Amino acid sequence: MIATEVKDIRKVENGHVTMPKGFSAGGLHCGIRRKRLDFGWIHSDNPATTAGVYTLNAFQAAPLKITKECINKGQLIQTVVVNSGNANSFTGKQGLLDALEMQELTAKKMGVALEHVAVASTGVIGVSLPMDKIRTGIEEMGNPEHAGVENFEEAILTTDTVTKHVAVQLEIDEKIITIGGAAKGSGMIHPNMATMLGFITTDAAVEPDSLQHALRTVVDKSFNMITVDGDSSTNDMVLLMANGQQENMPLNEAHPKWSLFLQALQMVSEGLSKSIARDGEGATKLIEANVKGAPSELAAKQVAKAIISSNLVKTAVYGADPNWGRIITAIGYSEQPIDPDKICVSLGDIEVVKDGCPVVFDESDGKRYLEKDTVLLNVDLQNGLGEATAWGCDLTYDYVKINASYRT
Amino acid sequence: MIATEVKDIRKVENGHVTMPKGFSAGGLHCGIRRKRLDFGWIHSDNPATTAGVYTLNAFQAAPLKITKECINKGQLIQTVVVNSGNANSFTGKQGLLDALEMQELTAKKMGVALEHVAVASTGVIGVSLPMDKIRTGIEEMGNPEHAGVENFEEAILTTDTVTKHVAVQLEIDEKIITIGGAAKGSGMIHPNMATMLGFITTDAAVEPDSLQHALRTVVDKSFNMITVDGDSSTNDMVLLMANGQQENMPLNEAHPKWSLFLQALQMVSEGLSKSIARDGEGATKLIEANVKGAPSELAAKQVAKAIISSNLVKTAVYGADPNWGRIITAIGYSEQPIDPDKICVSLGDIEVVKDGCPVVFDESDGKRYLEKDTVLLNVDLQNGLGEATAWGCDLTYDYVKINASYRT
Repeated sequence: MIATEVKDIRKVENGHVTMPKGFSAGGLHCGIRRKRLDFGWIHSDNPATTAGVYTLNAFQAAPLKITKECINKGQLIQTVVVNSGNANSFTGKQGLLDALEMQELTAKKMGVALEHVAVASTGVIGVSLPMDKIRTGIEEMGNPEHAGVENFEEAILTTDTVTKHVAVQLEIDEKIITIGGAAKGSGMIHPNMATMLGFITTDAAVEPDSLQHALRTVVDKSFNMITVDGDSSTNDMVLLMANGQQENMPLNEAHPKWSLFLQALQMVSEGLSKSIARDGEGATKLIEANVKGAPSELAAKQVAKAIISSNLVKTAVYGADPNWGRIITAIGYSEQPIDPDKICVSLGDIEVVKDGCPVVFDESDGKRYLEKDTVLLNVDLQNGLGEATAWGCDLTYDYVKINASYRT
Repeated sequence: MIATEVKDIRKVENGHVTMPKGFSAGGLHCGIRRKRLDFGWIHSDNPATTAGVYTLNAFQAAPLKITKECINKGQLIQTVVVNSGNANSFTGKQGLLDALEMQELTAKKMGVALEHVAVASTGVIGVSLPMDKIRTGIEEMGNPEHAGVENFEEAILTTDTVTKHVAVQLEIDEKIITIGGAAKGSGMIHPNMATMLGFITTDAAVEPDSLQHALRTVVDKSFNMITVDGDSSTNDMVLLMANGQQENMPLNEAHPKWSLFLQALQMVSEGLSKSIARDGEGATKLIEANVKGAPSELAAKQVAKAIISSNLVKTAVYGADPNWGRIITAIGYSEQPIDPDKICVSLGDIEVVKDGCPVVFDESDGKRYLEKDTVLLNVDLQNGLGEATAWGCDLTYDYVKINASYRT
C-alpha cells in the first residue's frame, strides 16, 4: 500500500523516458526478431551522470559487464543502445567482443565518447549476437524515420504485450524537474533483477554517489519486489541517467527536497515495476502482497515475496478461488519468525483470517474480488513494525504456452 | 545418478508397505471426498519403533503436532490413521481436539495404547475436520471388506493420479529383512517436506536413535530433493516403523550391515520420492537434475534444486525445447560459487555446454531426448567433489487447470 499519489509530485499522463529535457530515443527493426522492432536507443544531449544496478545471477551477460565497467569508471553515459531477440549471454569471449563492437560503432555513429555508451541485450541465451544485423541497426540510427520514444519502447520488448512507460514532475529550487522511465519484462522476472531492463532519465542534476544510492534504494522497493516466475536472468539491469539540463544545483542527501526527489523516483520505479508484473507472461491480473507487522522490513519483504512467488497462490488467483490456505502456507515456509496465533489475512477488504483464526466470509464475495484485474493480498503479522509490498501476477495456461515453445 | 540397483538388495516387484512381516493396512470411503477413498490405516501386530520427520513450515497442522509429540515421547507406534480431503491445518484449538479424538477413537477401536496411534491428514487447509465422517471411518476399520494395502494406498491420495509403493529385501544376520513404503504427492511438493505423506515399514529390529538418524539421512537425499511447485505444505510427514518381527538383534550404526540397511532404506525412500515427482500435478515427465563437481554437497543440492524448481526449465522440458540457457540461468541464481568458465551441461548424453562454452549439437536430437518420459539434466561444475540429485517434473497446462480450481 505504498502511496502512488504524493503531494508536490505530479504524475504525467502518458509520460515517458524522453520527457525530461535533453533526451531523445528511437527504435527500428534490424532483423534479429522476425517482424517486430528489435533495436533501440536513448540519447542525452550531454553526458549524463548515470547509476546502475545489475543482476545477481552468477552468469552476467557480456553487455552487462561492459556497461557496468563504464559506469563504475566514470559514471557518465550519453547513449544507451539496446537490442532484443538475443541476450548475448553465455556467448564466451566472442560475446564480449560483440558487445564491445556494438558499443564502439554506436559511439562513432552518435559522435560520443566510447566510454559514454551503455549497451544492453535481451532475448535468447547462448547464441552469438548476429553482428551483421546489429551493424545495420547502428547505421540506421541517424535516420529520422526511426526517431521517437514509442519506437524505443517497442524495440526493447520480448514476450511483453504492452510497452511500459511513466513520468512524474516535481519542483526543486524553482525548476520543474521531470523523471521518466521505460522498461521491459516479462518472463524470468524475480526479485534481485530479472530479464528485465529499466531505463530511467531525469533532467535534474544529481551528484554521482547520491544518484547511485537513490537508485539502489528505490530498486530495492520496486524492481526487486516483483516476480513473475522466480527466475532471475543474466541480463537484468536498471540504469538511471541524470543529465542536469534543468541546471539546478546538483542534488544530494543534504538537499531539503532530497526525500521528495526520492519519492518521485520511487513512483517512476514502482510504476514501471507494476507494469512489468501486470504484463507477466500469460498474466491476466496484477497481484499486490502487502505485509505489515513483521519483525523487520527484511522479514516483511521475505513474506511478501513468498506469497507473490507461490505457484499455488498464483493459480488460485487465476481461478478466482479464495483458497487462503495457500497464502498461509506460503507465509509459513518463508522462513521468517511468525506467530500463528496473531496473523491476519484479507483479500482486499475481505477478512479471511483474524488473530490466527479463520473468519467466516461469503465465498462468492471472495470469488468476485479475485476476479478483479488488480488483487490485493493483505497480511498483518502483528509482530513488529516491518512493512513491505511485492507485486506479481497470476499463473495461467498462457504462461505455459508461451514458455513451452519460446524459441519455436 | 544415485544407484537404484545395489548388490545384496533385491527390489520386490509390486512391493508395498505391508510386505514386511506383521503389518496390515486398509482404507475406505468415509465421505470427506465425493467418491474416492479418503480414510486409511497401517497397523503393526506389535508396537513398532518409529522415527518421524516433519514439515519445516511455520504452521504445522494439528495431526502433525499430535503425532510428533507421541513419537518424541516413546518412539513407539502401532497404528497410523490417515484421512485425505481435509488437512486439519489452521483449524485452531478445535483442530487439535479433533486430531486427539481421531487418535483416541482409533486406539479404542484397534485395542492399542493411545500414545501408540499416529494421525495424519491431507487436503484443504482451514476447514474443520468433519468429525462425524471420521467417526464413521473409525467404526468401519474392523470390517474385513476394507482390508488391503491397495485400499490404504488409494485412501491417502489427493490430486495424485497413481498410488505409490515400493519394497526391497536384504539379508541381515541370516534373516530376510523387508522394507516397504507408501506415499502420496502431488501438489505443494518442495524440498523440506511437502504436501506429502510417506510411510515406510520394516520387520527389522532397529534401535530407536539409529532409526531416527537413518530416516533423517535418507529423507535428506530423497523426499527433501523433490519439488513439484516450490510450495512446502503444513502437513508433510514421513514415518518409518520398525516392528522387529524378524527377531534380529536390534540394528545400530555399529552393525557391519548398517550401511547396507541404509542403502536399502534409501532405495525405498528414493523410489517413493521419484514416484511423487513423476506424478506431480499435471506432470507428463520425471526430470532428474544431477549435479557434480560442486564445492560441497550442500552447494550441489542447492544447484540441483534451483534447476528442478525453475518454471522456465520445467516449461521448456514440457515443450521439449532444448533451451539450455534456462538451465544455466537457474544455476546462476542458485547463489552458489560457480566458475562460468568450467561448467558443463548435458541433456542425457547430449553435451550442450562444455568448459563454459556452448557446444554445437543437433537441435532435433535435443528435442527427441526431451520428449522421453524421464529426462536427465546433468551438470558438472568442475569445482569440487560435491554431488547431489534432485527430482521434479514438467510444468504443464494441466498444473494450472488442477490448481486454478482445486476446490470447485
